[in-house]
Amino acid sequence: MDRIRRNERLAAMTRILVESPNKIFTLGTFCEMFGAAKSTLSEDIDILRSVFAQFRLGQLDTVTGAAGGVRYRPVLQPEDAYRAVKDLAQQLAVPGRILPGGFIYMADILAQPDIVERMGMIIASQFYRSEPDFVLTMETKGIPVAMMAAKALNVPLVIVRRDSKVYEGPAVNINYLSGSGGRVETMSLSRRAVKEGQRALIVDDFMRAGGTARGMVDMMREFAVTVVGVCVLVSTQEPSKKRLEGVKSLLVMDGVDESSGTAAIRPAAWLAQAAERARLG
Amino acid sequence: MDRIRRNERLAAMTRILVESPNKIFTLGTFCEMFGAAKSTLSEDIDILRSVFAQFRLGQLDTVTGAAGGVRYRPVLQPEDAYRAVKDLAQQLAVPGRILPGGFIYMADILAQPDIVERMGMIIASQFYRSEPDFVLTMETKGIPVAMMAAKALNVPLVIVRRDSKVYEGPAVNINYLSGSGGRVETMSLSRRAVKEGQRALIVDDFMRAGGTARGMVDMMREFAVTVVGVCVLVSTQEPSKKRLEGVKSLLVMDGVDESSGTAAIRPAAWLAQAAERARLG
Repeated sequence: MDRIRRNERLAAMTRILVESPNKIFTLGTFCEMFGAAKSTLSEDIDILRSVFAQFRLGQLDTVTGAAGGVRYRPVLQPEDAYRAVKDLAQQLAVPGRILPGGFIYMADILAQPDIVERMGMIIASQFYRSEPDFVLTMETKGIPVAMMAAKALNVPLVIVRRDSKVYEGPAVNINYLSGSGGRVETMSLSRRAVKEGQRALIVDDFMRAGGTARGMVDMMREFAVTVVGVCVLVSTQEPSKKRLEGVKSLLVMDGVDESSGTAAIRPAAWLAQAAERARLG
Repeated sequence: MDRIRRNERLAAMTRILVESPNKIFTLGTFCEMFGAAKSTLSEDIDILRSVFAQFRLGQLDTVTGAAGGVRYRPVLQPEDAYRAVKDLAQQLAVPGRILPGGFIYMADILAQPDIVERMGMIIASQFYRSEPDFVLTMETKGIPVAMMAAKALNVPLVIVRRDSKVYEGPAVNINYLSGSGGRVETMSLSRRAVKEGQRALIVDDFMRAGGTARGMVDMMREFAVTVVGVCVLVSTQEPSKKRLEGVKSLLVMDGVDESSGTAAIRPAAWLAQAAERARLG
Protein backbone atom coordinates (compact mmCIF):
# COMPACT_ATOMS: atom_id res chain seq x y z
CA MET A 1 0.00 0.00 0.00
CA ASP A 2 1.22 3.49 -0.83
CA ARG A 3 1.98 5.83 1.99
CA ILE A 4 -1.25 7.58 2.98
CA ARG A 5 -1.26 11.34 2.76
CA ARG A 6 -2.77 13.62 5.37
CA ASN A 7 -5.71 14.72 3.26
CA GLU A 8 -6.62 11.10 2.58
CA ARG A 9 -6.43 10.28 6.29
CA LEU A 10 -8.60 13.27 7.16
CA ALA A 11 -11.29 12.26 4.68
CA ALA A 12 -11.32 8.63 5.82
CA MET A 13 -11.36 9.59 9.53
CA THR A 14 -14.22 12.01 8.93
CA ARG A 15 -16.28 9.33 7.23
CA ILE A 16 -15.62 6.87 10.06
CA LEU A 17 -16.33 9.33 12.87
CA VAL A 18 -19.48 10.77 11.27
CA GLU A 19 -21.08 7.37 10.65
CA SER A 20 -20.63 6.38 14.32
CA PRO A 21 -21.71 9.40 16.34
CA ASN A 22 -20.89 9.56 20.06
CA LYS A 23 -18.57 6.57 19.78
CA ILE A 24 -15.04 7.00 21.11
CA PHE A 25 -12.31 5.89 18.71
CA THR A 26 -8.87 5.47 20.25
CA LEU A 27 -5.92 6.99 18.46
CA GLY A 28 -4.58 3.43 18.33
CA THR A 29 -7.43 2.39 16.05
CA PHE A 30 -6.48 5.05 13.54
CA CYS A 31 -2.72 4.43 13.96
CA GLU A 32 -3.26 0.84 12.90
CA MET A 33 -5.62 1.73 10.08
CA PHE A 34 -3.33 4.31 8.50
CA GLY A 35 0.13 3.20 9.66
CA ALA A 36 0.76 6.63 11.19
CA ALA A 37 2.24 7.79 14.50
CA LYS A 38 0.05 9.00 17.37
CA SER A 39 1.57 12.47 17.19
CA THR A 40 0.62 12.71 13.51
CA LEU A 41 -2.94 11.63 14.26
CA SER A 42 -3.21 14.15 17.10
CA GLU A 43 -2.39 16.85 14.59
CA ASP A 44 -4.97 15.40 12.19
CA ILE A 45 -7.62 15.58 14.88
CA ASP A 46 -6.73 19.19 15.69
CA ILE A 47 -7.26 20.05 12.04
CA LEU A 48 -10.57 18.19 11.90
CA ARG A 49 -11.79 19.84 15.09
CA SER A 50 -11.22 23.30 13.69
CA VAL A 51 -12.76 22.43 10.30
CA PHE A 52 -15.88 21.07 11.98
CA ALA A 53 -16.15 24.19 14.12
CA GLN A 54 -15.50 26.58 11.21
CA PHE A 55 -18.18 25.04 8.97
CA ARG A 56 -20.58 24.28 11.85
CA LEU A 57 -20.53 20.59 11.01
CA GLY A 58 -20.86 19.22 14.53
CA GLN A 59 -18.57 18.75 17.46
CA LEU A 60 -15.35 16.79 17.62
CA ASP A 61 -14.09 16.11 21.15
CA THR A 62 -10.92 14.62 22.47
CA VAL A 63 -11.77 12.42 25.43
CA THR A 64 -8.95 11.90 27.92
CA GLY A 65 -8.41 8.98 30.28
CA ALA A 66 -7.98 5.23 29.95
CA ALA A 67 -10.95 4.87 27.58
CA GLY A 68 -9.97 8.07 25.80
CA GLY A 69 -9.87 8.94 22.15
CA VAL A 70 -11.82 11.07 19.73
CA ARG A 71 -15.57 11.34 19.38
CA TYR A 72 -17.97 13.05 16.95
CA ARG A 73 -21.29 14.46 18.09
CA PRO A 74 -23.73 15.85 15.49
CA VAL A 75 -24.53 18.94 17.57
CA LEU A 76 -26.16 21.79 15.66
CA GLN A 77 -25.26 25.36 16.60
CA PRO A 78 -28.17 27.05 18.47
CA GLU A 79 -28.98 29.28 15.48
CA ASP A 80 -28.96 26.31 13.08
CA ALA A 81 -31.15 24.27 15.44
CA TYR A 82 -33.61 27.14 15.76
CA ARG A 83 -33.71 27.62 12.00
CA ALA A 84 -34.29 23.89 11.36
CA VAL A 85 -37.15 23.77 13.87
CA LYS A 86 -38.64 26.98 12.48
CA ASP A 87 -38.56 25.51 8.95
CA LEU A 88 -40.43 22.49 10.28
CA ALA A 89 -42.99 24.73 11.99
CA GLN A 90 -43.65 26.43 8.67
CA GLN A 91 -44.15 23.10 6.93
CA LEU A 92 -46.61 22.02 9.63
CA ALA A 93 -48.50 25.32 9.43
CA VAL A 94 -49.47 24.78 5.78
CA PRO A 95 -53.30 24.79 5.49
CA GLY A 96 -54.98 21.39 5.21
CA ARG A 97 -52.94 19.59 7.85
CA ILE A 98 -55.57 19.79 10.55
CA LEU A 99 -57.84 16.75 10.73
CA PRO A 100 -61.23 16.38 12.44
CA GLY A 101 -60.79 16.55 16.22
CA GLY A 102 -57.93 19.05 15.98
CA PHE A 103 -55.27 16.44 15.16
CA ILE A 104 -52.39 17.46 12.95
CA TYR A 105 -51.23 15.30 10.04
CA MET A 106 -47.48 14.81 10.51
CA ALA A 107 -46.90 11.33 9.06
CA ASP A 108 -45.32 12.68 5.85
CA ILE A 109 -42.93 14.89 7.82
CA LEU A 110 -42.02 12.06 10.20
CA ALA A 111 -41.28 9.96 7.10
CA GLN A 112 -38.50 12.24 5.82
CA PRO A 113 -35.16 10.79 6.93
CA ASP A 114 -33.32 14.13 6.70
CA ILE A 115 -35.92 15.95 8.82
CA VAL A 116 -36.23 13.30 11.52
CA GLU A 117 -32.47 12.90 11.61
CA ARG A 118 -31.98 16.61 12.20
CA MET A 119 -34.67 16.64 14.89
CA GLY A 120 -33.12 13.53 16.46
CA MET A 121 -29.78 15.34 16.57
CA ILE A 122 -31.31 18.39 18.26
CA ILE A 123 -32.99 16.16 20.85
CA ALA A 124 -29.81 14.15 21.44
CA SER A 125 -27.71 17.29 21.87
CA GLN A 126 -29.85 18.26 24.87
CA PHE A 127 -29.16 14.96 26.62
CA TYR A 128 -25.53 13.99 25.97
CA ARG A 129 -24.65 15.12 29.48
CA SER A 130 -27.46 13.03 30.99
CA GLU A 131 -25.82 9.90 29.56
CA PRO A 132 -28.93 7.81 28.86
CA ASP A 133 -28.43 4.06 28.33
CA PHE A 134 -31.33 3.88 25.88
CA VAL A 135 -34.08 5.90 24.24
CA LEU A 136 -37.65 4.84 25.00
CA THR A 137 -40.62 5.54 22.73
CA MET A 138 -44.18 4.31 22.27
CA GLU A 139 -45.18 2.80 18.94
CA THR A 140 -45.70 3.97 16.14
CA LYS A 141 -45.37 7.51 14.85
CA GLY A 142 -42.54 8.53 17.18
CA ILE A 143 -40.24 5.66 16.22
CA PRO A 144 -38.33 7.37 13.37
CA VAL A 145 -37.38 10.48 15.35
CA ALA A 146 -36.64 8.41 18.48
CA MET A 147 -34.45 6.09 16.39
CA MET A 148 -32.47 9.03 15.05
CA ALA A 149 -32.02 10.45 18.57
CA ALA A 150 -30.81 7.00 19.66
CA LYS A 151 -28.39 6.91 16.74
CA ALA A 152 -26.96 10.34 17.59
CA LEU A 153 -26.55 9.22 21.22
CA ASN A 154 -25.20 5.80 20.17
CA VAL A 155 -27.64 3.91 22.41
CA PRO A 156 -30.39 1.37 21.67
CA LEU A 157 -34.01 2.30 20.98
CA VAL A 158 -36.59 0.52 23.13
CA ILE A 159 -40.18 0.48 21.88
CA VAL A 160 -43.21 0.24 24.16
CA ARG A 161 -46.07 -1.64 22.52
CA ARG A 162 -49.83 -1.17 22.75
CA ASP A 163 -50.22 -4.84 23.62
CA SER A 164 -47.92 -7.75 24.32
CA LYS A 165 -46.69 -9.70 21.31
CA VAL A 166 -45.69 -13.35 21.06
CA TYR A 167 -42.29 -12.37 19.64
CA GLU A 168 -41.43 -10.07 22.54
CA GLY A 169 -41.51 -12.74 25.26
CA PRO A 170 -42.74 -12.13 28.83
CA ALA A 171 -43.82 -8.51 29.24
CA VAL A 172 -44.90 -5.97 31.85
CA ASN A 173 -48.27 -4.39 31.11
CA ILE A 174 -49.51 -1.19 32.71
CA ASN A 175 -52.60 0.95 32.28
CA TYR A 176 -52.42 4.65 31.55
CA LEU A 177 -54.74 7.56 30.84
CA SER A 178 -54.73 8.46 27.18
CA GLY A 179 -55.99 11.67 25.57
CA SER A 180 -57.54 14.72 27.17
CA GLY A 181 -60.66 12.69 27.95
CA GLY A 182 -58.68 10.19 30.00
CA ARG A 183 -59.48 6.83 28.42
CA VAL A 184 -57.74 3.94 30.17
CA GLU A 185 -55.40 2.13 27.78
CA THR A 186 -52.67 -0.47 28.13
CA MET A 187 -49.00 -0.34 27.23
CA SER A 188 -46.63 -3.29 27.26
CA LEU A 189 -42.87 -3.67 27.44
CA SER A 190 -40.85 -6.86 27.09
CA ARG A 191 -39.11 -7.90 30.31
CA ARG A 192 -35.88 -8.43 28.36
CA ALA A 193 -35.90 -4.94 26.87
CA VAL A 194 -34.19 -3.03 29.69
CA LYS A 195 -32.22 -3.68 32.86
CA GLU A 196 -32.70 -2.43 36.40
CA GLY A 197 -30.60 0.65 37.19
CA GLN A 198 -30.35 1.86 33.58
CA ARG A 199 -31.06 5.43 32.49
CA ALA A 200 -33.82 6.20 29.99
CA LEU A 201 -34.44 9.16 27.71
CA ILE A 202 -38.11 9.21 26.64
CA VAL A 203 -38.76 10.58 23.13
CA ASP A 204 -42.11 10.89 21.39
CA ASP A 205 -43.58 12.78 18.46
CA PHE A 206 -46.60 14.48 19.98
CA MET A 207 -47.93 15.36 23.43
CA ARG A 208 -51.26 16.84 24.34
CA ALA A 209 -52.30 15.98 27.92
CA GLY A 210 -49.15 13.97 28.56
CA GLY A 211 -50.86 10.71 29.46
CA THR A 212 -48.72 8.53 27.22
CA ALA A 213 -45.49 10.17 28.39
CA ARG A 214 -46.63 9.75 31.98
CA GLY A 215 -47.39 6.10 31.26
CA MET A 216 -43.84 5.59 29.96
CA VAL A 217 -42.42 7.19 33.12
CA ASP A 218 -44.59 4.86 35.23
CA MET A 219 -43.43 1.92 33.11
CA MET A 220 -39.79 2.81 33.79
CA ARG A 221 -40.54 2.82 37.51
CA GLU A 222 -41.72 -0.81 37.16
CA PHE A 223 -38.30 -1.63 35.69
CA ALA A 224 -36.40 0.43 38.32
CA VAL A 225 -35.00 2.59 35.53
CA THR A 226 -34.15 6.28 36.02
CA VAL A 227 -35.74 8.69 33.53
CA VAL A 228 -33.13 11.33 32.66
CA GLY A 229 -35.45 13.34 30.44
CA VAL A 230 -38.61 13.44 28.36
CA CYS A 231 -38.57 15.19 24.99
CA VAL A 232 -41.27 15.46 22.34
CA LEU A 233 -41.25 16.91 18.87
CA VAL A 234 -44.55 18.81 19.28
CA SER A 235 -46.49 19.65 22.42
CA THR A 236 -49.76 21.56 22.55
CA GLN A 237 -50.19 24.73 24.59
CA GLU A 238 -53.56 23.42 25.85
CA PRO A 239 -54.18 21.87 28.31
CA SER A 240 -51.55 23.93 30.11
CA LYS A 241 -51.69 21.46 33.01
CA LYS A 242 -50.09 18.27 31.73
CA ARG A 243 -50.11 14.84 33.36
CA LEU A 244 -46.31 15.05 33.40
CA GLU A 245 -44.15 18.07 34.23
CA GLY A 246 -40.71 18.93 32.90
CA VAL A 247 -41.21 17.72 29.34
CA LYS A 248 -39.02 19.43 26.75
CA SER A 249 -40.49 20.02 23.31
CA LEU A 250 -39.04 21.34 20.07
CA LEU A 251 -42.30 22.77 18.76
CA VAL A 252 -45.34 24.23 20.49
CA MET A 253 -48.79 24.13 18.90
CA ASP A 254 -50.72 27.13 20.24
CA GLY A 255 -53.99 26.17 18.62
CA VAL A 256 -55.73 25.14 15.44
CA ASP A 257 -58.19 26.80 13.11
CA GLU A 258 -60.36 23.87 12.06
CA SER A 259 -62.21 25.85 9.36
CA SER A 260 -59.02 26.56 7.38
CA GLY A 261 -57.30 23.40 8.63
CA THR A 262 -54.33 25.42 9.86
CA ALA A 263 -52.19 25.04 12.97
CA ALA A 264 -50.54 27.87 14.88
CA ILE A 265 -47.18 26.26 15.58
CA ARG A 266 -43.77 27.67 16.55
CA PRO A 267 -40.36 26.64 17.89
CA ALA A 268 -40.31 26.28 21.69
CA ALA A 269 -39.09 29.32 23.63
CA TRP A 270 -35.88 27.63 24.85
CA LEU A 271 -34.73 27.17 21.24
CA ALA A 272 -35.41 30.82 20.39
CA GLN A 273 -33.58 31.95 23.52
CA ALA A 274 -30.55 29.76 22.87
CA ALA A 275 -30.33 31.12 19.30
CA GLU A 276 -30.62 34.70 20.58
CA ARG A 277 -27.89 34.16 23.19
CA ALA A 278 -25.60 32.66 20.53
CA ARG A 279 -26.29 35.58 18.19
CA LEU A 280 -25.34 38.10 20.88
CA GLY A 281 -22.19 36.07 21.46
CA MET B 1 -12.02 34.06 6.52
CA ASP B 2 -8.63 32.47 5.92
CA ARG B 3 -8.06 30.68 2.68
CA ILE B 4 -9.29 27.11 3.07
CA ARG B 5 -6.74 24.38 2.51
CA ARG B 6 -7.40 21.21 0.56
CA ASN B 7 -7.35 18.92 3.58
CA GLU B 8 -9.91 21.12 5.32
CA ARG B 9 -12.14 21.08 2.25
CA LEU B 10 -11.87 17.32 1.95
CA ALA B 11 -12.89 16.79 5.58
CA ALA B 12 -15.82 19.20 5.35
CA MET B 13 -17.04 17.72 2.04
CA THR B 14 -16.82 14.21 3.46
CA ARG B 15 -18.93 15.16 6.45
CA ILE B 16 -21.55 16.82 4.21
CA LEU B 17 -21.72 13.98 1.68
CA VAL B 18 -21.83 11.21 4.29
CA GLU B 19 -24.67 12.77 6.27
CA SER B 20 -26.84 13.05 3.15
CA PRO B 21 -26.47 9.73 1.34
CA ASN B 22 -27.73 9.41 -2.24
CA LYS B 23 -28.18 13.16 -2.55
CA ILE B 24 -26.51 14.87 -5.50
CA PHE B 25 -24.48 17.95 -4.56
CA THR B 26 -23.52 20.19 -7.46
CA LEU B 27 -19.95 21.36 -7.68
CA GLY B 28 -21.41 24.88 -7.51
CA THR B 29 -22.64 24.22 -3.96
CA PHE B 30 -19.12 23.41 -2.84
CA CYS B 31 -17.55 26.24 -4.91
CA GLU B 32 -19.70 28.71 -3.03
CA MET B 33 -19.12 27.10 0.35
CA PHE B 34 -15.33 27.03 0.04
CA GLY B 35 -14.65 29.86 -2.38
CA ALA B 36 -12.76 27.47 -4.69
CA ALA B 37 -12.77 26.91 -8.45
CA LYS B 38 -14.62 24.02 -10.07
CA SER B 39 -11.39 22.51 -11.35
CA THR B 40 -10.00 22.47 -7.81
CA LEU B 41 -13.14 20.78 -6.50
CA SER B 42 -13.03 18.19 -9.30
CA GLU B 43 -9.56 17.26 -8.10
CA ASP B 44 -10.84 17.11 -4.51
CA ILE B 45 -13.57 14.72 -5.55
CA ASP B 46 -11.09 12.49 -7.40
CA ILE B 47 -9.05 12.26 -4.21
CA LEU B 48 -12.12 11.48 -2.11
CA ARG B 49 -13.30 8.83 -4.54
CA SER B 50 -10.02 6.96 -4.34
CA VAL B 51 -9.84 7.27 -0.53
CA PHE B 52 -13.35 5.89 -0.16
CA ALA B 53 -12.51 3.02 -2.48
CA GLN B 54 -9.16 2.28 -0.80
CA PHE B 55 -10.61 2.09 2.72
CA ARG B 56 -13.92 0.50 1.59
CA LEU B 57 -15.90 3.40 3.04
CA GLY B 58 -18.70 3.47 0.49
CA GLN B 59 -19.11 4.71 -3.03
CA LEU B 60 -18.59 8.23 -4.35
CA ASP B 61 -20.04 8.83 -7.80
CA THR B 62 -19.81 11.71 -10.19
CA VAL B 63 -23.18 12.18 -11.85
CA THR B 64 -23.08 13.90 -15.22
CA GLY B 65 -25.80 15.92 -16.93
CA ALA B 66 -27.83 19.01 -16.09
CA ALA B 67 -28.66 17.82 -12.56
CA GLY B 68 -25.16 16.46 -12.17
CA GLY B 69 -22.75 16.61 -9.29
CA VAL B 70 -21.31 14.26 -6.70
CA ARG B 71 -23.15 11.70 -4.63
CA TYR B 72 -22.24 9.38 -1.75
CA ARG B 73 -23.78 5.95 -1.36
CA PRO B 74 -23.04 3.87 1.75
CA VAL B 75 -22.49 0.68 -0.24
CA LEU B 76 -20.65 -2.09 1.60
CA GLN B 77 -18.26 -4.31 -0.35
CA PRO B 78 -19.76 -7.81 -0.85
CA GLU B 79 -17.32 -9.37 1.63
CA ASP B 80 -18.07 -6.70 4.25
CA ALA B 81 -21.82 -7.11 3.73
CA TYR B 82 -21.55 -10.88 4.08
CA ARG B 83 -19.45 -10.55 7.24
CA ALA B 84 -21.91 -8.07 8.81
CA VAL B 85 -24.88 -10.35 8.10
CA LYS B 86 -22.96 -13.38 9.37
CA ASP B 87 -22.16 -11.53 12.61
CA LEU B 88 -25.86 -10.82 13.00
CA ALA B 89 -26.73 -14.48 12.34
CA GLN B 90 -24.36 -15.46 15.15
CA GLN B 91 -25.99 -13.02 17.55
CA LEU B 92 -29.43 -14.37 16.66
CA ALA B 93 -28.29 -17.98 17.09
CA VAL B 94 -27.43 -17.48 20.77
CA PRO B 95 -29.51 -19.93 22.88
CA GLY B 96 -32.55 -18.47 24.63
CA ARG B 97 -33.83 -16.35 21.76
CA ILE B 98 -36.56 -18.76 20.71
CA LEU B 99 -39.93 -18.05 22.28
CA PRO B 100 -42.99 -20.35 22.55
CA GLY B 101 -44.45 -20.92 19.09
CA GLY B 102 -41.05 -20.85 17.39
CA PHE B 103 -40.81 -17.05 17.31
CA ILE B 104 -37.39 -15.46 17.58
CA TYR B 105 -36.71 -12.54 19.92
CA MET B 106 -35.08 -9.86 17.80
CA ALA B 107 -36.30 -6.63 19.44
CA ASP B 108 -32.94 -5.96 21.12
CA ILE B 109 -31.07 -6.39 17.83
CA LEU B 110 -33.55 -4.22 15.94
CA ALA B 111 -32.97 -1.57 18.63
CA GLN B 112 -29.26 -1.17 17.90
CA PRO B 113 -28.80 1.84 15.61
CA ASP B 114 -25.44 0.65 14.25
CA ILE B 115 -26.79 -2.81 13.36
CA VAL B 116 -30.02 -1.61 11.75
CA GLU B 117 -28.14 1.12 9.92
CA ARG B 118 -25.72 -1.41 8.42
CA MET B 119 -28.58 -3.73 7.45
CA GLY B 120 -30.47 -0.75 5.99
CA MET B 121 -27.39 0.08 3.90
CA ILE B 122 -27.13 -3.49 2.61
CA ILE B 123 -30.82 -3.48 1.67
CA ALA B 124 -30.57 -0.05 0.02
CA SER B 125 -27.52 -1.07 -2.00
CA GLN B 126 -29.60 -3.78 -3.71
CA PHE B 127 -32.20 -1.27 -4.86
CA TYR B 128 -30.41 1.94 -5.89
CA ARG B 129 -30.87 0.99 -9.52
CA SER B 130 -34.60 0.38 -9.03
CA GLU B 131 -34.99 4.03 -7.97
CA PRO B 132 -37.82 3.67 -5.44
CA ASP B 133 -39.71 6.84 -4.48
CA PHE B 134 -40.32 5.57 -0.96
CA VAL B 135 -39.78 2.63 1.39
CA LEU B 136 -42.93 0.93 2.70
CA THR B 137 -43.08 -1.07 5.92
CA MET B 138 -45.73 -2.38 8.30
CA GLU B 139 -45.67 -1.25 11.92
CA THR B 140 -43.85 -1.88 14.32
CA LYS B 141 -40.71 -3.99 14.52
CA GLY B 142 -39.55 -3.38 10.97
CA ILE B 143 -39.62 0.41 11.23
CA PRO B 144 -36.01 0.98 12.39
CA VAL B 145 -34.40 -1.07 9.61
CA ALA B 146 -36.84 0.29 7.01
CA MET B 147 -36.06 3.83 8.19
CA MET B 148 -32.34 3.24 7.76
CA ALA B 149 -32.87 1.79 4.28
CA ALA B 150 -34.94 4.89 3.45
CA LYS B 151 -32.17 7.12 4.77
CA ALA B 152 -29.53 5.37 2.67
CA LEU B 153 -31.79 5.73 -0.38
CA ASN B 154 -32.72 9.32 0.53
CA VAL B 155 -36.46 8.66 0.19
CA PRO B 156 -39.36 8.87 2.67
CA LEU B 157 -40.52 5.98 4.83
CA VAL B 158 -44.22 5.16 4.63
CA ILE B 159 -45.72 3.10 7.44
CA VAL B 160 -48.74 0.85 7.04
CA ARG B 161 -50.84 0.69 10.22
CA ARG B 162 -52.82 -2.16 11.75
CA ASP B 163 -55.87 0.10 11.93
CA SER B 164 -56.77 3.59 10.79
CA LYS B 165 -55.87 6.42 13.16
CA VAL B 166 -57.55 9.80 13.60
CA TYR B 167 -54.25 11.59 12.96
CA GLU B 168 -53.66 9.89 9.62
CA GLY B 169 -56.76 11.24 7.88
CA PRO B 170 -58.81 9.25 5.32
CA ALA B 171 -57.28 5.81 4.79
CA VAL B 172 -57.52 2.74 2.59
CA ASN B 173 -58.09 -0.47 4.56
CA ILE B 174 -57.50 -3.94 3.14
CA ASN B 175 -57.70 -7.43 4.58
CA TYR B 176 -54.83 -9.87 4.38
CA LEU B 177 -53.95 -13.36 5.53
CA SER B 178 -51.56 -13.28 8.47
CA GLY B 179 -49.42 -16.12 9.81
CA SER B 180 -49.12 -19.69 8.60
CA GLY B 181 -52.62 -20.38 9.89
CA GLY B 182 -54.10 -17.69 7.66
CA ARG B 183 -56.00 -15.43 10.07
CA VAL B 184 -57.72 -12.53 8.29
CA GLU B 185 -56.36 -9.20 9.54
CA THR B 186 -56.64 -5.60 8.43
CA MET B 187 -53.99 -3.12 7.38
CA SER B 188 -54.54 0.57 6.80
CA LEU B 189 -52.70 3.27 4.88
CA SER B 190 -53.42 6.98 4.83
CA ARG B 191 -54.67 8.22 1.44
CA ARG B 192 -52.18 11.11 1.64
CA ALA B 193 -49.20 8.85 2.21
CA VAL B 194 -48.33 7.99 -1.39
CA LYS B 195 -49.16 9.12 -4.92
CA GLU B 196 -50.34 7.17 -7.95
CA GLY B 197 -47.52 6.14 -10.24
CA GLN B 198 -44.82 6.13 -7.55
CA ARG B 199 -42.38 3.28 -7.01
CA ALA B 200 -42.25 1.43 -3.69
CA LEU B 201 -39.58 -0.68 -2.04
CA ILE B 202 -41.15 -2.90 0.64
CA VAL B 203 -38.93 -3.62 3.67
CA ASP B 204 -39.83 -5.67 6.72
CA ASP B 205 -38.02 -7.42 9.54
CA PHE B 206 -39.41 -10.95 9.38
CA MET B 207 -41.29 -13.14 6.93
CA ARG B 208 -42.71 -16.58 7.48
CA ALA B 209 -45.61 -17.36 5.12
CA GLY B 210 -45.40 -13.96 3.45
CA GLY B 211 -48.97 -12.87 4.17
CA THR B 212 -48.04 -9.43 5.47
CA ALA B 213 -45.67 -8.75 2.57
CA ARG B 214 -48.35 -9.92 0.17
CA GLY B 215 -50.82 -7.59 1.90
CA MET B 216 -48.46 -4.66 1.36
CA VAL B 217 -48.13 -5.53 -2.34
CA ASP B 218 -51.93 -5.66 -2.60
CA MET B 219 -52.15 -2.34 -0.78
CA MET B 220 -49.78 -0.76 -3.31
CA ARG B 221 -52.04 -2.00 -6.12
CA GLU B 222 -54.91 -0.04 -4.51
CA PHE B 223 -52.74 3.08 -4.76
CA ALA B 224 -51.59 2.30 -8.34
CA VAL B 225 -48.00 2.18 -7.10
CA THR B 226 -45.34 -0.07 -8.66
CA VAL B 227 -43.48 -2.37 -6.26
CA VAL B 228 -39.81 -2.42 -7.32
CA GLY B 229 -38.76 -4.95 -4.70
CA VAL B 230 -39.52 -6.67 -1.42
CA CYS B 231 -36.72 -7.24 1.07
CA VAL B 232 -36.83 -8.66 4.59
CA LEU B 233 -34.17 -9.01 7.23
CA VAL B 234 -35.05 -12.63 8.10
CA SER B 235 -37.16 -15.14 6.22
CA THR B 236 -37.88 -18.69 7.32
CA GLN B 237 -37.06 -21.70 5.18
CA GLU B 238 -40.49 -23.18 6.00
CA PRO B 239 -43.05 -22.94 4.53
CA SER B 240 -41.07 -23.13 1.30
CA LYS B 241 -44.16 -22.00 -0.60
CA LYS B 242 -44.70 -18.34 0.38
CA ARG B 243 -47.74 -16.19 -0.33
CA LEU B 244 -45.41 -13.88 -2.28
CA GLU B 245 -42.59 -14.84 -4.64
CA GLY B 246 -39.37 -12.96 -5.36
CA VAL B 247 -38.71 -11.69 -1.84
CA LYS B 248 -35.07 -10.99 -1.06
CA SER B 249 -33.87 -11.69 2.48
CA LEU B 250 -30.58 -11.05 4.25
CA LEU B 251 -30.91 -13.96 6.67
CA VAL B 252 -32.56 -17.35 6.39
CA MET B 253 -33.86 -19.21 9.43
CA ASP B 254 -33.68 -22.93 8.65
CA GLY B 255 -35.43 -24.00 11.81
CA VAL B 256 -35.56 -23.77 15.56
CA ASP B 257 -34.77 -26.12 18.41
CA GLU B 258 -37.41 -25.18 20.94
CA SER B 259 -35.91 -27.28 23.73
CA SER B 260 -32.63 -25.34 23.72
CA GLY B 261 -34.28 -22.14 22.46
CA THR B 262 -31.82 -21.94 19.56
CA ALA B 263 -32.35 -20.89 15.96
CA ALA B 264 -30.47 -22.27 12.95
CA ILE B 265 -29.91 -19.04 11.05
CA ARG B 266 -27.49 -18.05 8.27
CA PRO B 267 -26.83 -15.36 5.67
CA ALA B 268 -28.88 -15.83 2.50
CA ALA B 269 -27.15 -17.65 -0.36
CA TRP B 270 -26.97 -14.56 -2.62
CA LEU B 271 -24.84 -12.75 -0.03
CA ALA B 272 -22.45 -15.68 0.31
CA GLN B 273 -22.19 -15.97 -3.48
CA ALA B 274 -21.52 -12.25 -3.96
CA ALA B 275 -18.78 -12.39 -1.32
CA GLU B 276 -17.25 -15.44 -2.98
CA ARG B 277 -17.28 -13.82 -6.43
CA ALA B 278 -15.64 -10.68 -5.00
CA ARG B 279 -12.98 -12.79 -3.25
CA LEU B 280 -12.10 -14.54 -6.48
CA GLY B 281 -11.92 -11.11 -8.13
